[in-house]
Amino acid sequence: MKRIPSGLVFARFVALAALLVLGAHAQAQTDALPSWNDGPAKQAILAFVQATTDPASSQFLPPAVRIATFDQDGTLWVEHPMYTQVMYCLERVPALAAKKPELKQVEPFKTVLSGNREAMAKLTLPDLEKILAATLTGMSVEQFNAEVKTWLATAKHPRWDRPYTELTYLPMQEVLRYLRAYGYKTYIVTGGGQDFVRVYAEQVYGIPPEQVVGTVGGTKYGYGRDGKPFLTKEPKLLLNDNNAGKAEGIHLMIGRRPYAAFGNSTGDQQMLEYTQAGAGMRLAMLVLHDDATREYGYGPAQGLPNTRVGTFPQTLYDKAKQGGWIVISMKNDWKQIFAFQGK
Amino acid sequence: MKRIPSGLVFARFVALAALLVLGAHAQAQTDALPSWNDGPAKQAILAFVQATTDPASSQFLPPAVRIATFDQDGTLWVEHPMYTQVMYCLERVPALAAKKPELKQVEPFKTVLSGNREAMAKLTLPDLEKILAATLTGMSVEQFNAEVKTWLATAKHPRWDRPYTELTYLPMQEVLRYLRAYGYKTYIVTGGGQDFVRVYAEQVYGIPPEQVVGTVGGTKYGYGRDGKPFLTKEPKLLLNDNNAGKAEGIHLMIGRRPYAAFGNSTGDQQMLEYTQAGAGMRLAMLVLHDDATREYGYGPAQGLPNTRVGTFPQTLYDKAKQGGWIVISMKNDWKQIFAFQGK
Repeated sequence: MKRIPSGLVFARFVALAALLVLGAHAQAQTDALPSWNDGPAKQAILAFVQATTDPASSQFLPPAVRIATFDQDGTLWVEHPMYTQVMYCLERVPALAAKKPELKQVEPFKTVLSGNREAMAKLTLPDLEKILAATLTGMSVEQFNAEVKTWLATAKHPRWDRPYTELTYLPMQEVLRYLRAYGYKTYIVTGGGQDFVRVYAEQVYGIPPEQVVGTVGGTKYGYGRDGKPFLTKEPKLLLNDNNAGKAEGIHLMIGRRPYAAFGNSTGDQQMLEYTQAGAGMRLAMLVLHDDATREYGYGPAQGLPNTRVGTFPQTLYDKAKQGGWIVISMKNDWKQIFAFQGK
Repeated sequence: MKRIPSGLVFARFVALAALLVLGAHAQAQTDALPSWNDGPAKQAILAFVQATTDPASSQFLPPAVRIATFDQDGTLWVEHPMYTQVMYCLERVPALAAKKPELKQVEPFKTVLSGNREAMAKLTLPDLEKILAATLTGMSVEQFNAEVKTWLATAKHPRWDRPYTELTYLPMQEVLRYLRAYGYKTYIVTGGGQDFVRVYAEQVYGIPPEQVVGTVGGTKYGYGRDGKPFLTKEPKLLLNDNNAGKAEGIHLMIGRRPYAAFGNSTGDQQMLEYTQAGAGMRLAMLVLHDDATREYGYGPAQGLPNTRVGTFPQTLYDKAKQGGWIVISMKNDWKQIFAFQGK
């Protein structure tokens, strides 16, 4: 191999450094939120980031306190016709019954195994809880992670026939990246299972496991036959990360009040209230699903129906308007919804 | 103002970039752990960081998974004659009794108020739990934080007559900084109260609240008279972050297995086991308090007594030796113990 003179290496390094600096500068000049139409929602995000990260601003925040929290289902990705995690639990039942054949004759597993969609739609909350407990607990953390990973690689959304992980909202992905580029730590604060979301959050949203706050069950420490320690997922609820639980979960896992929070339903109300109640400039936003053509239409506006998932009644809409929260209209504020749809 | 030609600005930038690069290189040549004597403990830390952060190494770890966890009491700072948090709770009793005079006639508060040290030393665990519940719960998160901050500013350790926050071990502070300089995220994983430690961890150790894992109670979301939401600390235990609870707490709060873990007692055993049981190179270390002159002498070596805090029996010592954990001798491995003692 020919040796390169060290002076030349240094010159190349300098050229590269210069390119990186100029590149970063050029990027700052371009639109950080290209999938957003210009309007009050986009302007609110840009103004918030500008005001809280410009050292000359009266609202400047030191990087350590820049915390932004995001609900997941209905805020970062599609929650219809059913939460992805519930899909997972239902689709795990056959594998579970293969291991434990006695379940085949027991409700609600019998109904799920029948594949009768009408009967499945009538499952009650206690029925669902039994299915969740059976498919989300009783195995090691590593085994659970592997099962979720396998499922995500093959499962597809019934409407778009694509992996669930492709059904994230491009405009919200841009907000995540934009906030991080300005020193914000981005967290998911979800009513979904913390361990479930952790399996894909890093790959899908760039959010590491330690920044996923969710509904959590306990684990139990024990030793395998090889003497090695492992954790078993237990059917014991530590935190229901919905409604008031979202503010409590934020205190448990982060210990600081967020400066920005994003949600889409009554389950996010307390997180937004808690965020907004802190001193200084805050940003509280709600995604409104008013685009039945490109996604789904539900919520209070334009006579849209409320559904079992992502409840957004008129009272929440009124609260948002009173509290200075900003409602994001998927129809009007988002130029594009999914990355796969192209520009 | 004279305009500086842009070519000159660029040249200055290049010179600065070069200086930064050379500066970083020069720093790497100096001793990252100057308060450590050369020996197996220091060498193990240096070798671990070198092997896991050098891209050419077979043990190289991507930055995202570089997690290191540290017990606090007895590992990062002094735990004798009593855990700092227990000191806090005992010293809060007079203020509490001033607000709730009925406590003055009720045990164990009566004994604490008497100031009789002999009687206080005989308080049972249920007595202590009553005192902890009364002084750590029942107020808002903000009020608690303010009370702890006020106490820390004035309270002093009986032996050194200095604030508790000055009684951190300089060699461990160096390890924290060294690991962070190489991309490790450093966490405290303490049996102490998560909210208590969060009040000072950022200032004292450079560890932000979201990287403090501890024993946690629940909080309850509610609204003040002004309509503003706040969280009240509840006397409800969510996680006892000791023994097996340390591994469970790591999963709850971090969701990844650490690559390095540091402790000093039986309460840290499972955290070290759990860390060590992962694939690849791991570092598990135990601080042995064998320096009765400069700090305290307790543990299994040299006939040192076991005490109520920081139990380190011979069985743990044997386990460490079998498992390839490294025991840090305060007497032999640490050149200096506290920053205030000077070199």
